[in-house]
Amino acid sequence: MSPSALSLPQGTSVAATFKKDDDPKVGLVLNQFRCLIADLCQQFNGGHPGSAMGMAAIGVALWKYVMKYSPSNPDYFNRDRFVLSNGHTCLFQYTFLHLAGYKDMTFEQLKSYHSSRHDSICPGHPEIEIEGIEVTTGPLGQGVANAVGLAMATKNLAATYNRPSYDLVNNTTYCMIGDACLQEGVALEAFQAAGHWKLNNLVVIYDNNQITCDGSVDLCNTEDVNAKMRACGWEVIEIANGCYDVEGIVKALLKAKESQDQPTFINIRTVIGIGSKRAGDAKAHGAAYGSDDVRSIKKAFGMNPDEHFVVHEEVYAYFADIKPRGEALEKEWNSLLEAYSRNHPELHSEFKLRMEGKFPKDWRSIIPEKGIFSKDPIASRKSAGLICNPLAANLNNFMVGTADLSPSVAMSWKDKVDFQHPNLKTQCSINGNYSGRYIHYGVREHAMAGIANGLAAFNKGSFLPVTSSFFMFYIYAAPAVRMGALQGLQAIHIATHDSIGTGEDGPTHQPIALPQLYRAMPNILYIRPCDTEETAGAFAAALEAKNTPTIISLSRQNLPQYPENSSREGVQKGAYVFIEERDADVTLMGVGAELAFAVNARTVLLEKCGIKARVISFPCQRLFDAQPLEYKREVLQYRSTAPRVIIEAYAVNGWERYADAGFSMASFGKSLPGSDAYKYFGFDEDIIAAEVAKLVADVKRDGIESLHGEFRDLNPIKEHY
Amino acid sequence: MSPSALSLPQGTSVAATFKKDDDPKVGLVLNQFRCLIADLCQQFNGGHPGSAMGMAAIGVALWKYVMKYSPSNPDYFNRDRFVLSNGHTCLFQYTFLHLAGYKDMTFEQLKSYHSSRHDSICPGHPEIEIEGIEVTTGPLGQGVANAVGLAMATKNLAATYNRPSYDLVNNTTYCMIGDACLQEGVALEAFQAAGHWKLNNLVVIYDNNQITCDGSVDLCNTEDVNAKMRACGWEVIEIANGCYDVEGIVKALLKAKESQDQPTFINIRTVIGIGSKRAGDAKAHGAAYGSDDVRSIKKAFGMNPDEHFVVHEEVYAYFADIKPRGEALEKEWNSLLEAYSRNHPELHSEFKLRMEGKFPKDWRSIIPEKGIFSKDPIASRKSAGLICNPLAANLNNFMVGTADLSPSVAMSWKDKVDFQHPNLKTQCSINGNYSGRYIHYGVREHAMAGIANGLAAFNKGSFLPVTSSFFMFYIYAAPAVRMGALQGLQAIHIATHDSIGTGEDGPTHQPIALPQLYRAMPNILYIRPCDTEETAGAFAAALEAKNTPTIISLSRQNLPQYPENSSREGVQKGAYVFIEERDADVTLMGVGAELAFAVNARTVLLEKCGIKARVISFPCQRLFDAQPLEYKREVLQYRSTAPRVIIEAYAVNGWERYADAGFSMASFGKSLPGSDAYKYFGFDEDIIAAEVAKLVADVKRDGIESLHGEFRDLNPIKEHY
Repeated sequence: MSPSALSLPQGTSVAATFKKDDDPKVGLVLNQFRCLIADLCQQFNGGHPGSAMGMAAIGVALWKYVMKYSPSNPDYFNRDRFVLSNGHTCLFQYTFLHLAGYKDMTFEQLKSYHSSRHDSICPGHPEIEIEGIEVTTGPLGQGVANAVGLAMATKNLAATYNRPSYDLVNNTTYCMIGDACLQEGVALEAFQAAGHWKLNNLVVIYDNNQITCDGSVDLCNTEDVNAKMRACGWEVIEIANGCYDVEGIVKALLKAKESQDQPTFINIRTVIGIGSKRAGDAKAHGAAYGSDDVRSIKKAFGMNPDEHFVVHEEVYAYFADIKPRGEALEKEWNSLLEAYSRNHPELHSEFKLRMEGKFPKDWRSIIPEKGIFSKDPIASRKSAGLICNPLAANLNNFMVGTADLSPSVAMSWKDKVDFQHPNLKTQCSINGNYSGRYIHYGVREHAMAGIANGLAAFNKGSFLPVTSSFFMFYIYAAPAVRMGALQGLQAIHIATHDSIGTGEDGPTHQPIALPQLYRAMPNILYIRPCDTEETAGAFAAALEAKNTPTIISLSRQNLPQYPENSSREGVQKGAYVFIEERDADVTLMGVGAELAFAVNARTVLLEKCGIKARVISFPCQRLFDAQPLEYKREVLQYRSTAPRVIIEAYAVNGWERYADAGFSMASFGKSLPGSDAYKYFGFDEDIIAAEVAKLVADVKRDGIESLHGEFRDLNPIKEHY
Repeated sequence: MSPSALSLPQGTSVAATFKKDDDPKVGLVLNQFRCLIADLCQQFNGGHPGSAMGMAAIGVALWKYVMKYSPSNPDYFNRDRFVLSNGHTCLFQYTFLHLAGYKDMTFEQLKSYHSSRHDSICPGHPEIEIEGIEVTTGPLGQGVANAVGLAMATKNLAATYNRPSYDLVNNTTYCMIGDACLQEGVALEAFQAAGHWKLNNLVVIYDNNQITCDGSVDLCNTEDVNAKMRACGWEVIEIANGCYDVEGIVKALLKAKESQDQPTFINIRTVIGIGSKRAGDAKAHGAAYGSDDVRSIKKAFGMNPDEHFVVHEEVYAYFADIKPRGEALEKEWNSLLEAYSRNHPELHSEFKLRMEGKFPKDWRSIIPEKGIFSKDPIASRKSAGLICNPLAANLNNFMVGTADLSPSVAMSWKDKVDFQHPNLKTQCSINGNYSGRYIHYGVREHAMAGIANGLAAFNKGSFLPVTSSFFMFYIYAAPAVRMGALQGLQAIHIATHDSIGTGEDGPTHQPIALPQLYRAMPNILYIRPCDTEETAGAFAAALEAKNTPTIISLSRQNLPQYPENSSREGVQKGAYVFIEERDADVTLMGVGAELAFAVNARTVLLEKCGIKARVISFPCQRLFDAQPLEYKREVLQYRSTAPRVIIEAYAVNGWERYADAGFSMASFGKSLPGSDAYKYFGFDEDIIAAEVAKLVADVKRDGIESLHGEFRDLNPIKEHY
């Protein structure tokens, strides 16, 4: 049961080595760890004990022997990062954090798992707010993409700031996965990308227990996973006896660190719920084992079945060297940093700002001023390029990428360098290196957003990831975008070709309902600017939002510019008066690419019907909601007798909060040139004006209260599809 | 340039063989096809010419030589299915449909590509409504999952209805992909699953032009794709000269048909935009080539540069045999079916109903009646099992599957048989065969929904796919669920563990904003039943919705049953009066798992405050919207002075249409036992009653109009996270 003697290669001055004398202690640690997990799930009759028990030896190898980190300072900059992509096994991580000496992770906290304690730091899946947790995981596969982002962050910082004798940033990212992460598309995309980028500082550890909820993995997956990972450009190492072979696992992990130009996949065969009567069975996965089985587990592991939550002093003693080692490690690194500051003072000052999560220059001064924008119509995706390109060029924090839409999204700046392995040049004439900050994510929208989360999580503010694709494909990326919002990770998602204005590509590419997801989602800004000035405002809002991702939603087609009316400050308030009108009969609210319909319908209403309309530009609901009540009432003219009409070529759901009526989409779109698509669906200033005029007449006749409680859909085009 | 002589294996009586004499004609066909594509994109200065031109020889091999279909009857049941996963190359398919003689696809229609013609059947991406198009594609990767579903449909029908000498269903599914489909997670999931299921009737044809929008594929993908596909269980065939080697492609396609137990991946090297000056370059992908380049293309292919849209009679003549061949094919099959009807009359009558898209039995009689439901609390996910299991057991159309959550979703019925390759039993002791109708999709939510679309699209109504997972993970599946809605494909998505009631798994697993996506999305029903009776109503609505997918959103936790109040008929109207009250002071609207809060708060309001409340159950906005105005006004008591309050543990966005105030979620959730999570976020009958009482007092003082135009958020818990 216990691992045999080892003679490992010499580590650094602070690395632990696995010694023959450790053997009996390792056995005890594994036994007590497994019994503790069983107890922790048993106490509130729930949770995921099986894999955590199976993975115990992997945890010992990682936290005791291989990973470089400092429990005394969980934020130590050059620490190795650990991602638990199979997040339901969180007790595994919580328990090792406890044993390693993270101060918040007390024994009482461990026992709060699945309890009703509001201050528990042992939630059902690991959360980024907790010491020692790098990213929130749980939705399967996400962690793999996050880990790729974390490893890229290291590579980029190293290429940018490391100098001979100053290996400032050289940490490794470890990512634990289960069988399920090998089936989720987001992980499969990320594996492929990491192999391409040859991230030799990334190690994926596969808890190969061959069990998922439904039973044997053979029920749904019979691929040759090792061959597949090799085909993706990964080094593969196998461990047969993963439940006990700490030595083998340590060796494999150290070998992974020597990989020259490949990420490493360590395939470790384990037994889920080892020691339990249901060991190796799906029933061992996601439920407590019952007191009888917990007793028998303890007997199997030589523990007293009548004792619960037992961790002997020997076990703590076994891990006791971690804290001082970590402190020494950090001290050594701080000395290195100090010497670096003397020898590379300029680099050091920038690096220090990056460590502090700050930009090296004031971003406000980089965003172009209104006066310089052309008054000619321009697509807002191009406006976004005008704003973002100088930011990206000047701020090393910006890591800009695209899911294979460089020609469409305007995110590439002059002299940008691609993030690539430098050897790619000789291999296939692709230029780039790890200091590059332009990322060809491939056609992998989901992994792109997950990787962006990893970049943002490396060290808060050190990187500002910018992703880009068509807005429609942020439905592919949605699970990862949501995880970014949940974790409070700042990122900017450039979502071009929004609404039906995108045209010929047709209904598959025309978002109708997607804005409603992002407008309802907590902690994310969905901003649709109407012109270049508003696009500047959208970026300003995104850059201010230090704990919130932002989607900037942009047009494919040219949009008129409104230098007299549009305002970046207005965007930052979510909505603002675009054209004021005393004693208006109606307020028209326009959004982004469709604001022009409101402006033009206003003219038609005045000229043809003598109806006076004011116009509101409404780029962002969330920002508006955060304004003081007085401002909101001023903009919306609360209790005015004039109705408010929202005009947007999306489903109207959610606008009912701000408007009495809407001119919107009631169906999917259609493949037509953009301007024809608008017309086909009634988006025409004359049609809109005519419907608004009817509404105004109704309200004059029946009073504004006739609309209250009964939102009016004005678009006569109800269902084409 | 022209392919060399061939001696192909003998086909069936109606299969074409490639003859030496065809060579010069093939050359002409390829030349004219390519020039035509260039012209079609040039006329409106847009579209995707490059891959369509590169793939020409593949099209000739498929439509002229290998595929079995009948242009005279695009719906011929046993036709081979073709899926264009790289849907932007749609001109490729439209042009071959035209050449093959599909009657709607006239030359004038071809020329409507990218035009402003509303009646164009040549949209920017292929759409299912068009003759000869099996599924709508465009969002990359989806087509691969659809093709897997189509191939599974064949396998299942064959295993169920074929008998010795009666190979009724034996068609092949061909799926064309580009470089991008090899990067999208949904396709990677589907490849893995298809390899597992050993779908030897599935052929993926890879247009390997090594170009995506950003440039060379080497920019983002350097994997060994053949090795990877082999590792996934696929047979791999390579074609080097894919632009011209029709012979080689035909041979490969015929070899694929002989595969015993593997799907086939044919990796065909082509040149994007062949003939153009930008051949082999990313610029050849998604834009017209300009008149100069179009001229030079024509010169390169021996055509007159001054002539446009040229298709010689010889080219039509070359394809002229397809129509009669197809008719003969169908005639032969009809004879087979007739003989089958005599020899297997019972099977035949069921098969005929399946062909007609009908159920073999009346589903209404299978849904259990209200009287038999227990009055004990039960989780609505289990209620769904009570309703769905007998339907699935009795109706062969049901293809029920789960993304690895069998123990949680209650979709498995007694005596169900797994859909598996029969050999799996010997390989790894997994039972099942192709007649099985329970699908272990693996942890692949996205592919699951895409495969379900393929099953539903095989022949409308022949299959009713049922998918299942936690509701939160329908954010992974969203792109495919949306494609199902866009295509009008009936499916039932069983989405369990909804709202914060799911509890300990925490915020990663607690949906907050996802309902808003599906409530806003056109042509889909999102239904949250409150008890077993309402769950019966949800299934009834889903089964009635022949052209619409349905998401049934269900609780993890036990819910009280309301035999006196709840009504399946009410569910089918979207909302209905649950508890009526004359002269009510307030209307409480509850949804699904949170309806009980409305019912209980009503009691508290009456007993503690003397406030009279009526209660509305509101399981589905979309169904309610479709009701007559009178009904809607009756339920909502339009112009009553009593305010309407929606109570739901989701973001409130969109409910403003129906309610004046809401008790909802303003943040992501939290890991706590379900009942504690509710309490933590203010979902408590006393807290709700107290806030509603304040609202009622305000309204009594200020009038109902004080709420109008300003929706009131009642939950005092604004932001925990």
